Amino acid sequence: MTDTERAVHAAAQRSQEAAAELAPLTRAAKDEALSAMADALVDNAESIVSANAQDISRAREAGETEAVIDRLALSRERVGGIAEAVRAIADLPDPVGEVLRGNVLPNGLELRQIRVPLGVIGIIYEGRPNVTADAAALCLKSGNAALLRGSSSAYASNSRIVEVLRGAVEKTAVPADAVQLVPGSGRESAQALMRERGLVDVLIPRGGASLIRTVVRESAVPVVETGEGNCHVYVDEAADPEKAVAVAVNAKTQRYSTCNTAETLLVHAGIAERVLPRVLRSLRELDVTVHGDERVQEWDETVVAATEEDWATEYLSADLAVRVVDSMDEALGHIRTHSTRHTEAIVTDSQAAARHFTSRVDAAAVMVNASTRFTDGGEFGFGAEIGISNQKLHARGPMGLPEMTSTKYVVTGDGHVR
Amino acid sequence: MTDTERAVHAAAQRSQEAAAELAPLTRAAKDEALSAMADALVDNAESIVSANAQDISRAREAGETEAVIDRLALSRERVGGIAEAVRAIADLPDPVGEVLRGNVLPNGLELRQIRVPLGVIGIIYEGRPNVTADAAALCLKSGNAALLRGSSSAYASNSRIVEVLRGAVEKTAVPADAVQLVPGSGRESAQALMRERGLVDVLIPRGGASLIRTVVRESAVPVVETGEGNCHVYVDEAADPEKAVAVAVNAKTQRYSTCNTAETLLVHAGIAERVLPRVLRSLRELDVTVHGDERVQEWDETVVAATEEDWATEYLSADLAVRVVDSMDEALGHIRTHSTRHTEAIVTDSQAAARHFTSRVDAAAVMVNASTRFTDGGEFGFGAEIGISNQKLHARGPMGLPEMTSTKYVVTGDGHVR
Repeated sequence: MTDTERAVHAAAQRSQEAAAELAPLTRAAKDEALSAMADALVDNAESIVSANAQDISRAREAGETEAVIDRLALSRERVGGIAEAVRAIADLPDPVGEVLRGNVLPNGLELRQIRVPLGVIGIIYEGRPNVTADAAALCLKSGNAALLRGSSSAYASNSRIVEVLRGAVEKTAVPADAVQLVPGSGRESAQALMRERGLVDVLIPRGGASLIRTVVRESAVPVVETGEGNCHVYVDEAADPEKAVAVAVNAKTQRYSTCNTAETLLVHAGIAERVLPRVLRSLRELDVTVHGDERVQEWDETVVAATEEDWATEYLSADLAVRVVDSMDEALGHIRTHSTRHTEAIVTDSQAAARHFTSRVDAAAVMVNASTRFTDGGEFGFGAEIGISNQKLHARGPMGLPEMTSTKYVVTGDGHVR
Repeated sequence: MTDTERAVHAAAQRSQEAAAELAPLTRAAKDEALSAMADALVDNAESIVSANAQDISRAREAGETEAVIDRLALSRERVGGIAEAVRAIADLPDPVGEVLRGNVLPNGLELRQIRVPLGVIGIIYEGRPNVTADAAALCLKSGNAALLRGSSSAYASNSRIVEVLRGAVEKTAVPADAVQLVPGSGRESAQALMRERGLVDVLIPRGGASLIRTVVRESAVPVVETGEGNCHVYVDEAADPEKAVAVAVNAKTQRYSTCNTAETLLVHAGIAERVLPRVLRSLRELDVTVHGDERVQEWDETVVAATEEDWATEYLSADLAVRVVDSMDEALGHIRTHSTRHTEAIVTDSQAAARHFTSRVDAAAVMVNASTRFTDGGEFGFGAEIGISNQKLHARGPMGLPEMTSTKYVVTGDGHVR
């Protein structure tokens, strides 16, 4: 074991001990700690901003773009916003203790399945230091110990934020080790974290596709895979053209950088004439580059010829792949081949078409006459989310507090034997 | 890619295609296929028994014990029993389509979270060929394609059973590839299966601890870990001695080879005098070897001195580790150190003690005044189980049909945009 591995292992052990203390705490005890965290962030805003200044100056020396620096930068106002987000999490219902199933078995045993915390949640994330407090608060609210591994570019900010949060919670019933930063900021510390199966119950990577792929490939700890979204909008022959244009344009252009943004538009040939010209005009006005197949190119000379790669690309930019299909089954085949199983949308006024599409598309979320942009914990009414899972195990789609829990069967008898 | 890898990859692709066909099938269509499977097993019992004879004679040549051969052996009657189990699975409710959450969002979007099949379930198992039909039926009932990798010792039996099942389902709406045996029976085929992330949605290993550990360590496909159970019975100071003796003896001796069998008994010092002598006498009569600490040894000269290793051992045999503790917290500390988080039991008449224990023990199931042996899909009323998960992600405890599903959000609007 290297020094880093030893330090990460010791931290994971402390997290596990903290998790055991956290599990039986009441909602009131956890909310008190969250409230103390929010207060402490506000009270220590100045020292957080000055730690952040070190990260910023290092980023400038490294020649980072202004966009990167803006995402990294904290001000008193931004710290205030982070504190408000922590308070909002405290206001959410506590998922722990909820009875999911319960009945009396024929032999008189009383069976209850109850939500319990997962235990230790490891989070590997990039960029923004606001994730630090947000992830810590979501973990604490759901009774879990947070073991955080932020990016090295925000190490000074993250270290100070975690110091402030730990100082706040240790004055309450919550142990300081409920919130820990993984020691070290190099690649080795992330790798050591991924080997802590048995101490860390789940790893949630938050960041770009390459970070997520690395964690999925290398982690011995179970992973909840988040993020990648090559989302499609399919305009059915029976669509209302107005709604089709509105949904297609919104799904692409309301925001480019999010995983629920549409990257490919599929239009049924039978309605292309009534929909495509208007969509293409709107997209041109918004400076979106359209990568189209031959039939799409006929409508607009600014359309770029689409390649096989375009169908597979999550652009996250002002680009949209567009294809005309001759049937819904052709659209379903295209989606099956290229989908990342995140969000797929159909625009149609036909009940039969909607039913066919929703039962056959394999994705975390299927939208009918609604923009793909609605796949979001906030939009779904979850209050907060730790990420959007596009795997099928454990949690699928936006992950709120209930998705950060496991279950336990409590079986009560009166000396029952088999 | 080797030939085996190519063959396994092609099989996984066929499974994925079959899964896409299975997902939208109605309960009636799936039950018809299950019924056809059961009929075909009965009709082809003779050829299954004769294929099994090849496995048996190979096992005899290899010098296997009669116990191993008995577990491998199929007769007409046993095949009939397998067919009955398939029919019983058909009778269970279909988990697919169940609405788990649903509401109308403030903007009018209708949100529903629906159970859907996982897709392709890979099962790596040992020994008994009855698992082949059982696993195939559970997968099919829950809308999943089964990709089965049995042990090489049962390869002839498994091949014939799968052939019979495929012949039966392909006369119905279910595609033959809904049930496939992984090509090849060597170690390489299991390893190839574990690399099929993206095509295989989950791997469930069924078998001994070493098989499960290998799969957990080597698999790139997400795994649901089943099986290992180092279960404890804690007899609290406030226990009813009668119930304590009954539960302790039953938890150890009702069956030795199961994962929910108790392996360690912890007795509070304040009640040891009223409980331990009777437990030790019963165990001696049943030829159980007790591995006890010094205080236990005082009660019975046949008690063997327990070592540190005994506390960590899942005996699966007529052995029990026994320790006297001075407090519940000492028992909880012992359990936290040695538990595999499967099933832990307390015997007590104190509400406060039961509450303290159940909220602090981290396990799939916590029994109060009941034998650990009740952690079982059949006992819990699930009708059938694919295994008992002792991991925290996705499913924890006995896994019935609902645990073999994922979810999908279906969101219906009227041209909604953000």
